[in-house]
Amino acid sequence: MISLAAASLEDARAMDAADPLARHREAFALPDDATYLDGNSLGALPRATAKVLHDVVAEQWGNRLIRSWNEADWIGAPARVGNKIATMMGAQPGEVVVADSTSVNVFKLLSALTAQRPDSTHILTETGNFPSDVHVADGAARAAGMELRLVDRAALIDAIVPDTAALLISHVHYKTGERFDMAAVNDEAAEHGVPVVWDLSHSIGAVPLDLTRDGARYAVGCGYKYLNGGPGAPAFAYVATDRQHALRPTLQGWMGDARPFDFKDEYQPAPGIDRLRIGTPPMLSLLALECGVDAFLSADQTMLWDKSAALFDMLAGLVAERYPNLTLVTPRDPNRRGSHASFAHPHAWSINAALIERGVIGDFRTPDILRFGLTPLYTSFEDIWRAVDTLADIMATDDWREPRFAARTTVT
Amino acid sequence: MISLAAASLEDARAMDAADPLARHREAFALPDDATYLDGNSLGALPRATAKVLHDVVAEQWGNRLIRSWNEADWIGAPARVGNKIATMMGAQPGEVVVADSTSVNVFKLLSALTAQRPDSTHILTETGNFPSDVHVADGAARAAGMELRLVDRAALIDAIVPDTAALLISHVHYKTGERFDMAAVNDEAAEHGVPVVWDLSHSIGAVPLDLTRDGARYAVGCGYKYLNGGPGAPAFAYVATDRQHALRPTLQGWMGDARPFDFKDEYQPAPGIDRLRIGTPPMLSLLALECGVDAFLSADQTMLWDKSAALFDMLAGLVAERYPNLTLVTPRDPNRRGSHASFAHPHAWSINAALIERGVIGDFRTPDILRFGLTPLYTSFEDIWRAVDTLADIMATDDWREPRFAARTTVT
Repeated sequence: MISLAAASLEDARAMDAADPLARHREAFALPDDATYLDGNSLGALPRATAKVLHDVVAEQWGNRLIRSWNEADWIGAPARVGNKIATMMGAQPGEVVVADSTSVNVFKLLSALTAQRPDSTHILTETGNFPSDVHVADGAARAAGMELRLVDRAALIDAIVPDTAALLISHVHYKTGERFDMAAVNDEAAEHGVPVVWDLSHSIGAVPLDLTRDGARYAVGCGYKYLNGGPGAPAFAYVATDRQHALRPTLQGWMGDARPFDFKDEYQPAPGIDRLRIGTPPMLSLLALECGVDAFLSADQTMLWDKSAALFDMLAGLVAERYPNLTLVTPRDPNRRGSHASFAHPHAWSINAALIERGVIGDFRTPDILRFGLTPLYTSFEDIWRAVDTLADIMATDDWREPRFAARTTVT
Repeated sequence: MISLAAASLEDARAMDAADPLARHREAFALPDDATYLDGNSLGALPRATAKVLHDVVAEQWGNRLIRSWNEADWIGAPARVGNKIATMMGAQPGEVVVADSTSVNVFKLLSALTAQRPDSTHILTETGNFPSDVHVADGAARAAGMELRLVDRAALIDAIVPDTAALLISHVHYKTGERFDMAAVNDEAAEHGVPVVWDLSHSIGAVPLDLTRDGARYAVGCGYKYLNGGPGAPAFAYVATDRQHALRPTLQGWMGDARPFDFKDEYQPAPGIDRLRIGTPPMLSLLALECGVDAFLSADQTMLWDKSAALFDMLAGLVAERYPNLTLVTPRDPNRRGSHASFAHPHAWSINAALIERGVIGDFRTPDILRFGLTPLYTSFEDIWRAVDTLADIMATDDWREPRFAARTTVT
């Protein structure tokens, strides 16, 4: 795999021509008018998804209707798709289920863990973690009569103490792209007997994961980023087999009951990971997620990580060469980061707006971060070259100073 | 509106010909081979939905990608669709939001209400309420250090006492179809200062609702039954304007923050109903729900309730005439029931299985209930006639005694 910065568009095209993963790009319906580097926020559409969803809507829903719960195994989809995701993260069959949103899944796990450890005093997480993690942890702590303790990243692991009810930690940081050492954190927490909930939203499909090897017992993650499940695709939750039996979320519903169709008042948790199901899942979004996961599993995983590293090196190298005033905040070491690259600049908002107008779609994160997602299934080396070339031109011509780029007018 | 039982198939067809709502059936993609009377479990597919979803997938997601959060107003969809649903239930703009599942929404409301009333001792609900309501209430009570008190239907309202944290009540019972008098229950609860959470899953789109007039302050409901939102469509939550400010669910997430894109650690609830949003909503399922709601709103609501009553009378009358051994358990008075009809029979499971094999799709509810949904947007009088004719034939020929109908092999 070539990992040097391309000197020209022709070099980038030559790298794409030599890329054994390049054919996977054809499986995605990318826009004609844009260079898309925001797959870490919303993954691209697999072409197969449109066909599958047409069948799901017209045939499974429209024609077979309620019969599809059995005939099309809608009822088994949360476990089936969960098992597929499990293979991407070194989890075992029966350890992952698709359900609800990432935030709601965090709540399920934290509410169960605080209930198991009533003498603890606080939930611990990182200052500046993804806000929803912080908000959910705050609510779960309040419900348990505990505090939420926010600690800066550098001091976070040392802040684990025996009366920590749980550590909620993002494996890859949504903004900086920094990655924690999963095995080391789990080891440290285990010494204090503290359970760790991993948020894998920016990790799953982005970096190699082996939760079994690395001793992770609890995790959640997002379906609509690197898994290409579509906008707001349902999330997943992971609980290691040896921790499932004792887990009893206070947020419990009929789909997590051992026999939901007995329609009983008494709740009896399903034997395994299914106890994390609550209500009826949004099937259209869930079956779109399955297509995204299938697209991912069709590629060689190791080659994906190598290509991600090559894309990163090319992006970082070209930016440093052509516009060094952007400060790379993401670690260069591929073992210490995810699959996006973030750069700081005081005028990041305006620069991002100017880039979008010219069809280069990354995103802005407050207060000063330009973020580019590298999704090796469909990001090409030419994409990287075009993005940096456009960026350099915008900076050289001061286009980003145009008044129309001055105000924040969009929500994402 | 004709409300007598049809004596023959020709009579039923004549009633359809005279039905001013009959044209709405054309807006739905119903199966060719079946008579569908299970729209109270999974509503039928509006033809418009398939077209809209194709555009959502191919254009909004596939081509515009992340830009659709602003351009296509994905970000505003939970409030926009909520406001449409509000018009169906006598709620005001800004009082309804679409989010998560019905179960998760029940948890949000109960967790907030128990927190407001910490000196209360229990959450109250009906024995045999829909299981997920009971399970969620059980979990919410446990989280609050309270009990769940289950009381039989006939004694439920008298069981409201000042130390009841909240009454969780299904307006229309999922099994029997019985309906509570919303205004009377709210009045009684208000006398004790007890908040009431209404589950409208079998009411919305099924019976006339006026939550403002009837003094309801909190409600949830389902998107995939009478709203025709598709399998597992997201649910809605309602909070009266005067109760929104004080409501602080322990299940809180970034989409319910006042400024989610400021990405702050500190959670500040959005000013209104939006505080009940948690994570990113499943957009494909949510936009399908919008199509279902639009289909509903295209019809004259009063005429829908009248037709529902006529369908019920025809079904109950024909069953009584042709197979009186089925016992109607749903009240005949249209003001005391929803829009489904339930009959008890010791062999309901086998009879339902035999009906399905012959293309008459209702459903079974344990232990002995045959349930038929009447969805006046697309249920015809001919459907009713065919269903009863098939039922009578199955009973006359004892077909339901075939061994293949003996065992429960399906999950729904």
